[in-house]
Amino acid sequence: MVKVVLAQKLLQANEEVAAENRRLLEEKGVVMVNLISGPGAGKTTLLERTLPLLKDKLGVAVIEGDIYTTRDAERIAGTGVEAVQINTRGACHLDAAMVNEALRQLPLNDLDIIFVENVGNLVCPAEFDLGDDYKIVVASVPEGMDKPAKYPLAFQKAFAALITKIDLLPYSDFNLGAYIEQLLTINPNLKIFPLSALKGEGVEEWSQFIGRVAWKRRRNLDVI
Amino acid sequence: MVKVVLAQKLLQANEEVAAENRRLLEEKGVVMVNLISGPGAGKTTLLERTLPLLKDKLGVAVIEGDIYTTRDAERIAGTGVEAVQINTRGACHLDAAMVNEALRQLPLNDLDIIFVENVGNLVCPAEFDLGDDYKIVVASVPEGMDKPAKYPLAFQKAFAALITKIDLLPYSDFNLGAYIEQLLTINPNLKIFPLSALKGEGVEEWSQFIGRVAWKRRRNLDVI
Repeated sequence: MVKVVLAQKLLQANEEVAAENRRLLEEKGVVMVNLISGPGAGKTTLLERTLPLLKDKLGVAVIEGDIYTTRDAERIAGTGVEAVQINTRGACHLDAAMVNEALRQLPLNDLDIIFVENVGNLVCPAEFDLGDDYKIVVASVPEGMDKPAKYPLAFQKAFAALITKIDLLPYSDFNLGAYIEQLLTINPNLKIFPLSALKGEGVEEWSQFIGRVAWKRRRNLDVI
Repeated sequence: MVKVVLAQKLLQANEEVAAENRRLLEEKGVVMVNLISGPGAGKTTLLERTLPLLKDKLGVAVIEGDIYTTRDAERIAGTGVEAVQINTRGACHLDAAMVNEALRQLPLNDLDIIFVENVGNLVCPAEFDLGDDYKIVVASVPEGMDKPAKYPLAFQKAFAALITKIDLLPYSDFNLGAYIEQLLTINPNLKIFPLSALKGEGVEEWSQFIGRVAWKRRRNLDVI
């Protein structure tokens, strides 16, 4: 019982900081996107391909969550986009306070969109609001068909789902049509983007979409 | 500070139940193997291929951890091996108390080996001892080369690492030799099995290995 009460208090404290992040970002006109996936779904590679398509038109930055290493932030820096690294030191997800600290290191007045790459974990990150405008769930073809059913929270809370590594479709028994149907059963409003960050297929459609979302949001237009 | 103290107490309480599980299993001469991986690394498919190779020679059972569904236990039941389902109802890992309850439902006197399939999560399960004899970490080729560096705890605590989906090697930039070197740098004692549960390659070697481990352990022989 103590455990449950404490967990509720922690979540409540997190909600308060998340609301503060959201106020700050709204004031500055910045959209924050929270990328959630299991390990190795390809979030960093996707960002490496997406950022070059956005950075000349929009002010873009990345907050990189990782347990110990700075590898992903270094990969993002290679695109010329500013990246702030958060090391959770063992913790299995980012929380709003960690993101708050990272936001203070970014030139918010110059930005339109911030991508947050959460810790590679399809469970815990879905429970912690960061003050983001949109959660994007990323799941790869080789992870198999059953992930939306087995980890429903991440898919229910998501604004969009990216189905990555579609270049591996010919070598697997993954049924893309049935998977999309399944996604829409769990979350009928989900925007869905099948793509291959490695081969490039679908990356432009996704990049245009998220760029348009940020652009419209900044101007207080209805999204989509 | 309260958070840290409570976390320590929870871990300590878990250690006590884990020790109880370990005593019970030792008394019954049963080896318990804890399979840890991110979502979609292929733990269930691996068990579907492994169990038929073991079940005629050894008493085998499976404890299936999943957040909400019973899909994996149903798949295991299809092999004719007894499976007990634990639903964590949102929790991101199994703990020793959940496993203790499952052990009470199994005919321990008839068993040599119990496989525990943990929740698909490469972070949290590594922190919670279940009273298992061996932790086995499972990571697939499409997850990429950087997982051992990014999620070191699971690899450091493991007795063996299974590199799954090697049938996808020709379609990726994954370097198997370099990956194995990396694994041995993190954990020099790690037994390593590259395999493809889909195509069958390497499954027999792994199955023979884990069967031998259980057989020797039962007879109090040195393992390996």
